[in-house]
Parts: sequence; C-alpha cells; structure tokens
Amino acid sequence: MASPSYKHFLVSTPLPNVAHVQINRPAKLNAYHEEMWIEMKTVFDTLSLSPDIRAIIFSGAGDKAFTAGLDVQAASQQGVLKQQEGAADVARVAVGIKRHVQEFQDCVSSIEKCEKPVICVLHGFSFGLAIDMSSCADIRICTKDVKLAVKEVDIGLAADIGTLTRLPKIVGNHSWIKDVCLSARVFGAEEAYRVGFVSQVLENKEKAVETALKMAELLASKSPVAVQGTKELLNHARDHTVASSLRYTGVWNSAAIQTEDVTKAMLSGIKKTKPRFEKL
Amino acid sequence: MASPSYKHFLVSTPLPNVAHVQINRPAKLNAYHEEMWIEMKTVFDTLSLSPDIRAIIFSGAGDKAFTAGLDVQAASQQGVLKQQEGAADVARVAVGIKRHVQEFQDCVSSIEKCEKPVICVLHGFSFGLAIDMSSCADIRICTKDVKLAVKEVDIGLAADIGTLTRLPKIVGNHSWIKDVCLSARVFGAEEAYRVGFVSQVLENKEKAVETALKMAELLASKSPVAVQGTKELLNHARDHTVASSLRYTGVWNSAAIQTEDVTKAMLSGIKKTKPRFEKL
Amino acid sequence: MASPSYKHFLVSTPLPNVAHVQINRPAKLNAYHEEMWIEMKTVFDTLSLSPDIRAIIFSGAGDKAFTAGLDVQAASQQGVLKQQEGAADVARVAVGIKRHVQEFQDCVSSIEKCEKPVICVLHGFSFGLAIDMSSCADIRICTKDVKLAVKEVDIGLAADIGTLTRLPKIVGNHSWIKDVCLSARVFGAEEAYRVGFVSQVLENKEKAVETALKMAELLASKSPVAVQGTKELLNHARDHTVASSLRYTGVWNSAAIQTEDVTKAMLSGIKKTKPRFEKL
Amino acid sequence: MASPSYKHFLVSTPLPNVAHVQINRPAKLNAYHEEMWIEMKTVFDTLSLSPDIRAIIFSGAGDKAFTAGLDVQAASQQGVLKQQEGAADVARVAVGIKRHVQEFQDCVSSIEKCEKPVICVLHGFSFGLAIDMSSCADIRICTKDVKLAVKEVDIGLAADIGTLTRLPKIVGNHSWIKDVCLSARVFGAEEAYRVGFVSQVLENKEKAVETALKMAELLASKSPVAVQGTKELLNHARDHTVASSLRYTGVWNSAAIQTEDVTKAMLSGIKKTKPRFEKL
Amino acid sequence: MASPSYKHFLVSTPLPNVAHVQINRPAKLNAYHEEMWIEMKTVFDTLSLSPDIRAIIFSGAGDKAFTAGLDVQAASQQGVLKQQEGAADVARVAVGIKRHVQEFQDCVSSIEKCEKPVICVLHGFSFGLAIDMSSCADIRICTKDVKLAVKEVDIGLAADIGTLTRLPKIVGNHSWIKDVCLSARVFGAEEAYRVGFVSQVLENKEKAVETALKMAELLASKSPVAVQGTKELLNHARDHTVASSLRYTGVWNSAAIQTEDVTKAMLSGIKKTKPRFEKL
Amino acid sequence: MASPSYKHFLVSTPLPNVAHVQINRPAKLNAYHEEMWIEMKTVFDTLSLSPDIRAIIFSGAGDKAFTAGLDVQAASQQGVLKQQEGAADVARVAVGIKRHVQEFQDCVSSIEKCEKPVICVLHGFSFGLAIDMSSCADIRICTKDVKLAVKEVDIGLAADIGTLTRLPKIVGNHSWIKDVCLSARVFGAEEAYRVGFVSQVLENKEKAVETALKMAELLASKSPVAVQGTKELLNHARDHTVASSLRYTGVWNSAAIQTEDVTKAMLSGIKKTKPRFEKL
Repeated sequence: MASPSYKHFLVSTPLPNVAHVQINRPAKLNAYHEEMWIEMKTVFDTLSLSPDIRAIIFSGAGDKAFTAGLDVQAASQQGVLKQQEGAADVARVAVGIKRHVQEFQDCVSSIEKCEKPVICVLHGFSFGLAIDMSSCADIRICTKDVKLAVKEVDIGLAADIGTLTRLPKIVGNHSWIKDVCLSARVFGAEEAYRVGFVSQVLENKEKAVETALKMAELLASKSPVAVQGTKELLNHARDHTVASSLRYTGVWNSAAIQTEDVTKAMLSGIKKTKPRFEKL
Repeated sequence: MASPSYKHFLVSTPLPNVAHVQINRPAKLNAYHEEMWIEMKTVFDTLSLSPDIRAIIFSGAGDKAFTAGLDVQAASQQGVLKQQEGAADVARVAVGIKRHVQEFQDCVSSIEKCEKPVICVLHGFSFGLAIDMSSCADIRICTKDVKLAVKEVDIGLAADIGTLTRLPKIVGNHSWIKDVCLSARVFGAEEAYRVGFVSQVLENKEKAVETALKMAELLASKSPVAVQGTKELLNHARDHTVASSLRYTGVWNSAAIQTEDVTKAMLSGIKKTKPRFEKL
Repeated sequence: MASPSYKHFLVSTPLPNVAHVQINRPAKLNAYHEEMWIEMKTVFDTLSLSPDIRAIIFSGAGDKAFTAGLDVQAASQQGVLKQQEGAADVARVAVGIKRHVQEFQDCVSSIEKCEKPVICVLHGFSFGLAIDMSSCADIRICTKDVKLAVKEVDIGLAADIGTLTRLPKIVGNHSWIKDVCLSARVFGAEEAYRVGFVSQVLENKEKAVETALKMAELLASKSPVAVQGTKELLNHARDHTVASSLRYTGVWNSAAIQTEDVTKAMLSGIKKTKPRFEKL
Repeated sequence: MASPSYKHFLVSTPLPNVAHVQINRPAKLNAYHEEMWIEMKTVFDTLSLSPDIRAIIFSGAGDKAFTAGLDVQAASQQGVLKQQEGAADVARVAVGIKRHVQEFQDCVSSIEKCEKPVICVLHGFSFGLAIDMSSCADIRICTKDVKLAVKEVDIGLAADIGTLTRLPKIVGNHSWIKDVCLSARVFGAEEAYRVGFVSQVLENKEKAVETALKMAELLASKSPVAVQGTKELLNHARDHTVASSLRYTGVWNSAAIQTEDVTKAMLSGIKKTKPRFEKL
Repeated sequence: MASPSYKHFLVSTPLPNVAHVQINRPAKLNAYHEEMWIEMKTVFDTLSLSPDIRAIIFSGAGDKAFTAGLDVQAASQQGVLKQQEGAADVARVAVGIKRHVQEFQDCVSSIEKCEKPVICVLHGFSFGLAIDMSSCADIRICTKDVKLAVKEVDIGLAADIGTLTRLPKIVGNHSWIKDVCLSARVFGAEEAYRVGFVSQVLENKEKAVETALKMAELLASKSPVAVQGTKELLNHARDHTVASSLRYTGVWNSAAIQTEDVTKAMLSGIKKTKPRFEKL
Repeated sequence: MASPSYKHFLVSTPLPNVAHVQINRPAKLNAYHEEMWIEMKTVFDTLSLSPDIRAIIFSGAGDKAFTAGLDVQAASQQGVLKQQEGAADVARVAVGIKRHVQEFQDCVSSIEKCEKPVICVLHGFSFGLAIDMSSCADIRICTKDVKLAVKEVDIGLAADIGTLTRLPKIVGNHSWIKDVCLSARVFGAEEAYRVGFVSQVLENKEKAVETALKMAELLASKSPVAVQGTKELLNHARDHTVASSLRYTGVWNSAAIQTEDVTKAMLSGIKKTKPRFEKL
C-alpha cells in the first residue's frame, strides 16, 4: 500500500504491516532542524493510528549516520540556541525557551507514544538527538561501527529532549550513564551492548536493517491486541509502582482479553497453524 | 520438623530453617490451573509467618520443567480465557475478568510479600507464569539448559500476572525486555545471565538445587532480623523515591537495631564464633 | 590554590578545578566513626559551593582500603549500636535511633547532593559504608583487587545509610543485588563491572587514581553549567516519572540555555579551539 | 433475600439491592475486639462480590454508639497493646506488632475496597476506630448528637489503622485535622459538617438511617457499571496524579462504556421511563 | 484588537489583555458535540500563547446554560456512545474508545494547560461536561440560580473527561464529592460555595460576568511573569510531593526572578504608581 | 527553665513543656531579612530536639503584625531580589538564585520538620512570608482583625518559599487558593476560617495567644510518643499514597507502641488519674 509522502522522512512498507521510517537528509548526516522534528511527530502519530501498520523500524537514510544530532548551525540561527540580543528580559526569554523545549520534547516523545512497537537501527554517527530518539524506541539494535555519544555537554548544555530523563530508566548502569552523559565521549557498539543500551549488534547497516525487518515481521504476525498491549503495559510499569501497574494491567486486560485473538491464538497453537488477526 | 502437606506442592525442610517448595505436577510440565495458584498463596503465606523458616528455595518437581506456564487447555475451559457465550454484557464480563486477574496477581505476589528470602531455581521449560513468579522471587538462578520465554503474546494477550510490571524494575536492559516480551521468543541461560535476569547459571538441576540450598543455608545462618529487614527495605526502595525510602529505612531500623542480634553478631565477629539467633 | 584543612580527610587540588578527597585514617583501614561522617558532610558541602572546583575524585588514603566501613568497635561504645541499659523505654530509644540514622544518612547524601560530579575510586577493602557512599557518587571505578561487600547483615542489621535504597536504582540486576545484600558475601572487581556497579576496572590504585584524575580533568574542561545541569537532571530522573522529569528539564534549561557557554562551546566546536568557561 | 448470618454484625437487606450492616455489640457500645474486625472483613468482602447488592449502609446497633472504638480492656489482655513480659527482643516484638497492625489495617480497608458504595451513619459515641472505618466509607452522614473523636492519643499511641492516613486526603482543612488528631478532643455534628468530614446531619439515628436508606435506594436504582466505576475512579484519583488517573480512566471506560446500560440509560432518559439494569 | 473567529465559540477582548470565551450554541443549551471540543482546544491553545492576553473568562452564551453537557443525541449517533453493531471485537472497540476518550480529555485539559489564568462563570444549566471543564479552570464563580450536576451516572457511565480525576484534588470534602458523583443529583450555588467548589456566588449572570471581568482585569494588571508562574506552580503542587514542588519552584524562579518586573513592581510599590509590564 | 537567647526571636517557656516563639522586630512589623530566617531555623531545630519542650506556639511580637513579610527594602539591597549588574551570565545568576531559594525554603521548612506540634497565631499584618511560614505550622488560629495576603505577585514574583506548594495540600478549596494567590488581595479572619485555612478565630491577640497556650498545654500533657508520632504520620500521609502511608504507619508503631506510655495512658484512663509521661 502507498504511504504518505514526507519532506524529510522516507516512509515505506517493505513488508505487509511493517513500516520503515528513514530520516532523509543524508547529505547533512541526517542532522535535524526544527521543521524536521515537527514533521517526525506527524510521521509517528500517523503510523500510531494506521490500522495497516503493526511494527515500525526506524533508521537513517544513507550509510554515514543515523543522525549526527541537532544541526548546530541551523540551531544557532533560529530557535533557543540563537544568541539573544541585548535587552531581552530574562524571564520572558525563559518562557520562550521552555515552550520551545516542551514542543521539541513532545515531538521526540511521539516515538514512545506510538502504539506500535518501534525498532531503532543505530548506525554510523548517532550523536545527541540520536540518543534522545532511540531511548523512546522499544528495541535498539546497532551496527558494529556505530559511533554513539550524548553530545550535548559539548555544546554547553544539558541534554533536554529526553536522554537524561529516559536513560536512567532503560539502562541499569548509572555509573556508565553518568560517565557518558557528563563526558560526552563517543562510545561504540560493544560498549552499548555490554551495558544494555542496545540488545543486538550487527555486522553492518544492511544486516541491521534486515534483522530489524525480520523482527518487525515477527511482531507483525502476532496478535496486535497482545503486542500493543504489551508495549503499553511495559511503558506504564516504568513510571508507576508495582501495585499501581498491576491495577492498571488488570483493567487493561479486562477489555483486551475479550478479544477473539485469544481463541485464534490458542487454537492455532494447538493446531500448529498460523493465525490471522484482524486489523487494530 | 514436619511440613504441612499440600495437593499441588511439595514442601520440605531439607536443612534446618530452610524450606524447599516444589511445584508438583511434573506429568504436565508443572503447568498451572486455578486451584494451584490459590494453593501456592497458602504455601507462601504460611512460610512467611513460620518462625522455623528463614530461607526458601522454589523449584519444579521433575526434570523437565520449572513450569510450562498456564495450563492453556484447562484455562480455555474455565476462567477468563474461556470463550464467553453470546449475549454477555461487555462491561459485566470485564468486571469478572478484572476480579479474576487481581486474584491471580495476588496469589503470585505472595512470593514477593513472603517475609523470608526466596531463591528461585529455573530449569527446563520455564514459560509464561514461570517468569511472572520468578520475578517475584529475590534471587533467580538457572540451569544451563533452561528454556525461558514470556509466552503470553503467543496466546493472544499481554502478560498480566506481573511479568510486564516487574521485569522493567528488576532488569536494567529495556531494549532486551521489550524484545523478549513482544516476540515471545525462547531465550536461554547465557542470555538470561548476561542481561541480569538470573545471577548464576549451574550445570544442571541437581547442581542448581544444591547451590540454592547452600545459599539458603547461608542466609538462614544469619540474623533473621537483618535478613528479613534487608528484603523489605530493598523491595520498598524499588517503588519509592530515594528520600522516601531513606525515611522508611530510618524508622524501620529504629526498632530493628534494638535487637540483641546486633550484639551477638558483633561479638561473634570479634570472637570468630558462630552466632545463634532467636526465631523471628 | 590552598584547600581548607580537615582532621579526617585530605583535600587537595591536584589539577586546576579538580579536588581530590581522601579518607585519611589508613592505620584503621579508613574505618568511620561519627566525627568522620559529620566532617565529611562539611567537605562535600564546601566543595559543592566552591567556584574553583568543577570535578571531585574520592578515594581512601593508603594502599589497603577505600574504607573497611563502620568502625564497629567505636560504634559499640557510642551511638545507636551501643547496647542500651536495662530500663530504657523502647519508643524513646527508637526516636533517638531514628534521629541518629537520619543525621548519618544526611552526611552520606552530601556526596549525592554535591553539585559537582564525584568520581569514586574503590580500592582494597571497600565494605559496608563504602557501598553506601560510593552509591551516592556519580561514577564508580575500582582496582582489580578491590574487595567489596554489603557487610551490614553480618553485624545483625539491614544497611540503613543508603545502600539498600540506592543500589536498586543504580544497578539493573536485582537478583544480584538481593544476593550480595542478603549474603554479605565479598565480591570483586570483575563481578562489580559485569553487573554494572562500577564502569571501569584498573590495574591498581595508582592507575585508578590516575584514570579518575584524567576523567575529572576532562569534565572540568567543559562548561560547568552543562556538566552540573547534567548531574542534576540525571539525579532528578531517577526519582520522578518521565513526564515529570521532562517538565523539570524544560524549566531547568529555560535559564541554563541562556548562558554564554553555549555560544562559546559552539564557536570553539566550529573553530576547533578550546573554550574557557567562567566559574560557577 | 436471606443474608448470611454473622456473630458480631447484623446484615440485612431492608430494600432490594441495599444491604444494611450493623455493628452488633450494643451492650459494649459496639466496641471492637480482634475477632470483630476479622469478621468485618468477611462481611464487606462478601458484599463486594454479591451480585444482589448495589449499595450498603453501615451503622451501629442500638442507640448509644456507632462504636466507642477499640475495646481497650480486651486489647490490654491480648494483641499488640498487651504489656510485653520482660526479656522479649525489641525487634522481634516489633515484627509481631507490624504484622498485627497490617492485618488490622487490611480489615478496615475492606470497607474502602468494597466495590459497592458504602454510606456510613455516625451516631452516638463514634470514637477512635469509628473515624478509621468511616474514613474508608464513601459517604459519611451523622446525627445531631454524635460525639466524634480521634481518641488514640489518649491511649498513648498514634492512630495506625487509617485515620491519620486518610483524613488528610478526604478533608481539606489540615489545621482542623491536626487539632482534633493531636488533642483527641470530642467534636460534634456541626463541626464535622462545617469542615466537610460529614456531608449531612440528621435529627437522630432513625432519621439518619432513613436518609441513608433513601440515598442507597437511589444509588441502587442506577447502572451498577456506572456507580461502581465512579467509586473506583474517585478512589484511584486520590492516590495518583491527574495524568495518571486520566490514563486509567480512559482504559477503565474502554470496557465499561461498551455496556448496554448506556443505551438503556439514554433511552429511558429520553422516554422518561425507569431503566432496569442487569446484575453486576 | 481583533480576535480570530470560531464556529462554536465567541472569543472577544472586552478589556485590554482580557479574553472572554463564550460557548456559542445557546439554542441547544450550549451542549457539546465532538467538533466543539476539538475547536475549544484550539481556542485555549491559541490564547495560551497569545502575548496580548493575560487573563481569560469562560462562560456560556445566552441566559439558560453554561452548558447542559454532552449533546447526548449527537453522541448516540457517532463516537463512543454510539451502539456498536453486532460482531465487533471487544478489544478492538476498546482501543477505539480509549483513543477517543484520550482525545476528548486532551481537549478539556487545554483549559488547565493554558498558561493564562482562566475564570469560569457557571450559570444556568451546568451539567456533566460543565463540571469537567470548570474543574480545569483556575477560579470558579457562579450565579445564584446555577444548576450543577455530575450527570454521567445517569447516562450509564462513570465520568471520564476529568471530573472524577480532578474533583478530589480541588475540593476537600470527599463525602460530598462521592455523594454528588454517585447520585448525579442536581446541586445549587449555595452548596457549591459551602463545600468550596466555587469561591463566589453572584446575583445573576450579568453580575457574575461583570465580577469575573473585574477579577480578570486585576490579574491582567499584574506582572504576567508572576501571575503565570503562580498558576504553573500551584498546578505542579497538586500533583507532586512538597519536596518535589519546592525543588521545581526553586528552579522555576531561578529564571523568573531575573525579570525586570520585580524591580518595576517593587518601585511602583514604593512610589505608589501603577507599573506597566511588558508582554509575555 | 531558661531558654537560649536569640537576636531576632523571643523564645520563652510560659508553661511547663510549652515554648513560645515570637518574631521580635515589631518596629518593622516583624518583616524578615536573611539573618532572621537563618536564625529561625536554629530556633526550631533546637526546640525540635529539646526534651523539655512538647508543644510550641508561634506569634509576632507587638500588636501590629505577625509579620508584614519580606523586608523588601533589605531584599532589594542584597540577595536574589537585588538588581543584577549588567554583564552577569544568566545561567550563573540562576544557579545563585536557586541556591538562595533552597536555603530560604529549608529555613521555613524547619517549622514543618520540627518534631513538636507548632500552633501559629496569625494577627495584624500577616503577609507573604506569614503564609509560607504558617502553612508549615500544624494548627493555625487567628485574630478577628488579621489581614492576610499572599502578597508575592505584587512584587513581581511567584511565591517560592512554600505557600504555592503547601496551600493546595492543606486547604481543600482550590478556586479560593487560585483567587488569593493570583490576585494578592487581602483577606480576613472570617474568610480564612470559612475556607479552612485557620481553624479558630479569636477576639484579639491576647485571647488568641491565651487560646494557643491552652491548646499547647493540653498537647503537652499527653504522651509525647503519641503526639509527635501523630504529627509525623499526618505529614507523611500528605505526600504519599494511602497504601504507602499505611505501610509506614505500621512500621512506625511497631516501635512506638512498645512505649510504657500506652500502659500509663490506659491505666490513668481507667483510674481517672492524670498520667505523667517521660521526656522524649
């Protein structure tokens, strides 16, 4: 089926029910400017509700980079990093910055809020925003030669689009997190794998995309009620107590378990057939 | 000393102050039906208050499985996975499901609420409910040949008895958690060890039980005031802020430190003797 | 520049903007008594506000120990572990203990509250309090021969100065945490590295301090607005939901991004020069 | 229909779908001993799941008291307020107390957890436990001559069965709450009404029970899906952030709104008829 | 200045820097259908960022109603209350409902998220959605003849657009809240004032709007940095612990206090002049 | 007994075990400058631990004011409200402000953290800081002629020392809170009483102090274990869920109930004698 066409993203459906989102500014190492993150929200919000899509893979176009992060040159000419002229009132500038940061955060969070699972393929330069965005994805895999960095300290600021908020929740090695966030040093695939930031390392981009597609195909073959419920409940658990999440889970499944997918799945488990689940 | 006798569980005391709980339905790969999880709550509630027990190990009977999970066949004939007949009101069915799920959750949570440390030995098939239950245990070890899986997606539902709630709190690799929970794929001992789901891998079930027993013996030799306080405070920390848990800890120890165990333990530390602590 | 002089700590500035704090009771394996932890709070509170300091390394003096923990002999003669004489009212004793524990906790928490990043070098004996204190540090590295243990259970009590509260938040392997906290067993560098309690292992103390100094030097060369903001935001994230931390982050940066450090850092990034940042 | 018979409680169904629970120890001003609160949990747990019951009123038997609170004489001879003999270990006694208090709390909380709305009629002496229990009810009304008091301070302890936990959440006048909880002074109907602890004051017990019954009859005439959902969502809101409760609410209603009660209720609204809702 | 024109809302600026938003469907008692709440979000989002607006009043057009709530007839023909045809899968319907409810909640929450203070004038029929929306406003005043009701139970559902979530946080009389939410009964101005749902009662709509305008005029005359910061900090406090909100407040004011409004306000306080504050 | 002497506060013990703290700058309407709030922390920290003190009353010296709030003139010459000279870096100024605000907050919070109950007598001018401080007290009473105001908006800032954080937790009328905080308008005793900000109104200062002393005398006559535990548990409840506070309460009382005060209190209740409790 045809996908809507975007200015800064390639969105294709290489397999039934699987979307592939590519950041499409390879000439600039897929660096982001404001128009791009606003469009990205549209991409993921659309896929979130698209009944034909059950799993998404997210990568950069081209061989060099997932994304080199913020396009610093663009940022220094507009937006909050643009130098303020003389007399502006600090508090009024601050309100403007806060609004801008919140809008930027919302755009990045659209990846996390997307109801379908998102598999992020980190490859080549994957700096700054690359960490913010991939931390919103569900599954992170990378290539052997990936160059990762929480780069923000090196442009004089604390990362504010999600990295510092989400890394401590998704990786259980705070000594390492503090190290890479405070030093802004580049780290590679092996290190990312060892500490649990990515769960798989592939030979190169081709293999990584191939692996992500297979994984997405597998997820897309399962009950979307079960898969999307699982994503939601895992995300809920991250931010609530055990008691609160158990309560939420019980209510969630009080509707979800009434699906016919359960019967279909159980039957095909017994009959060793491949179930076909309705759209969601 | 004699242990009460149960229908679906073998409960023995292989060592002084150490209980061994075995799921006892080996002919069916220790698969669970409703009567079993209700009885399991009784087992752990009883051990929790038994003054003679200071540490517990939990395994499956037989060589093949810790547990293959829910007895799907039984479940499809009763309980919430049973197909509803025609005209039932969705909201009323939902309330019934919610009650059922909460009761099931409560039974599984009894392992976590048990005041004594629980060491879970995962071996053979350890699917679905095996992950829910072992996530409630304090220490997880496994055999080399264990076959683990968060299986629920494959029967068309999101796991609702605790796995999705607790895994993100006890394993610091969310990319991996999302992977195994969304895909329902089987994973083995090495992977479980690498990501930190289990903290030890043993050659086979015999060795694993032996290791668990030694560990339990060690814990049982220590001050029960100290050991059980440590379990409680670690569980509290998981669900509260640092400030809140420090406050709770101070209050907890305001009574606990008044125990004579402290003097006994310090003296025997100096005298290099083995302390004997009173029942708790 | 000269550092204030302390009774139990050596505080030096081996490199510009870098402080080195050494626990200075090597003859007693740097074991702590009450006067020491109270002084330690002064040390870290002072460094926290000192504009000349941008990074701190923390180690023990001498070759044998970071710290062997609480000086149990001293503790048994004063403070809460001193045996209470006969007739004291339990509730009144409890209030005294609670106050004492809270004061002790506050002293240890000063490491975490210190606005500057703290790199902790664990070496030799690093028992009990060593874990409480290093868990407050930002980055933990250790020597090959370090001997680590959550020792409190062996003196009859649950650790109450921070270990049980912070370990479950900074290490993503709860099975391992329960194991070492309940058993009080000694563990080494390799294990600490594998589970993510430390992020680097060095050959010996000399190398470890050298490595820590280089790391500190690097952090001290960066924008203090960015570095200290990053520490604060990562600590905030640990104790709040994602939504709450994103909101806090936006407000934090609404002032912080107005710093001239951003321009300086971006310019020097472009010009490949080394920026010089004002004191903070 | 017949109600189960209890030793310490009168449980009747004065109106269809309405249960009346009376504390039945009028000779002792309905003072509680342990057996009573354990039985009370059974009463409310049973009503919670009874499909024939849609609203509950809760009062004391006799004219003199809702309840005078804990039967102090009984309590001084058993349970946690019984004087401990000489040599008991403080920490072990503490664990016993904690277990006892938690069990007592659980029994009282059964009123709050009851899925059906509970209207509490406070009359005559309503001391100590009367406040703990009525704070769990949904609606509190009282008689003109009620004598209310948070009495626990006068027996040397801080109320621990729920009053201190719930009052600050259900009454928005913390200065008043601190006043009555710290002073243990008796307060009357007018004061209770003014600060919002009760929402109605009636002439005498007869009128109060009559009013409660009419209120219960009204609630019982409405959709049980709507009524019981409303209770659950209001209780959830009390303990969660707005964002978290909105999320929970959306999931709750995703099943509940599929009820046929919505259609029935809307139709009868249009047709001005009285709808009849199925059991829940 | 000219205001944008909307289909379902009248938006005027009766005084400098003060907007008046009127629900504009008086012929239907200002009852809402989906298009209206979506447009309402646009109205409040726009005002939130409009530098010319510093305070907002919100009322219904016409004499009869603020709003009679959901247009039940419209709702029964589209959206989630529309009867589902036969064979739809319960879980899939549930996901659709959840999305719909969340979107509806988002629209209503735009009143709370609006950075400018919103004064809500409740008059005439103010049912259902009227409570959801006014609970998002900052200040609620009403007319003597207002007819208020949490009506949802009477159409067979638990209110899910915010009433049940916010009422327990903004009114400190949970007995009363449970009463009106469970019974759906109509209540008037005096009762709303007594329990603290509204903070002022006016003779009639004209007087109420006049009072609201004066109040808005006063707020608009003050420093927008101070006024909008106060709204944000009060909203933050509602959902966070005291410690967490104090921390947030300190960071918020670290930028806000740098405003020139402080100097202006202090000077004009001393000089008894009227300060003029810049746009925000 | 003699009380320590302070520069800005009169601290006396008008009754056994009762302290009276008076703000002692009547010539300036008891307006605060920095030295005062730092000293105030010492006053309350000292009383908190003083075994001879069991209740505290807090008022202003002189007839005119509890306190007119911040000494704006002093504040404009030092501290964070002092106008910054030209070239200061916004982010560095912000860090300084944040530190200053946090220190100020800590001083005010000492009233809340004080282990003994604090009764605040509001009289005459009670502006700004008067609300921040009295919101930390346990019980608030006032004189008929008190003039209260959340004044901060009128000096161009959002109150940041506690008012905006605590008011929404201690008064259950958010419409009123928003009104007085946004408008900075003066309100009187009757209004404060009606909304529940104060719990008693007295004829004049003399009567109010007399009433407060009687109340304090009563609290001081009761078990300090019970009274101070009650304060702690009510404060804990304000910031935690019901489940979490019940858990904390159980642990708190596991030590506290072991006090001999329970026996003393129960005996004297039976014997109608006046118990004498040991110091705490």
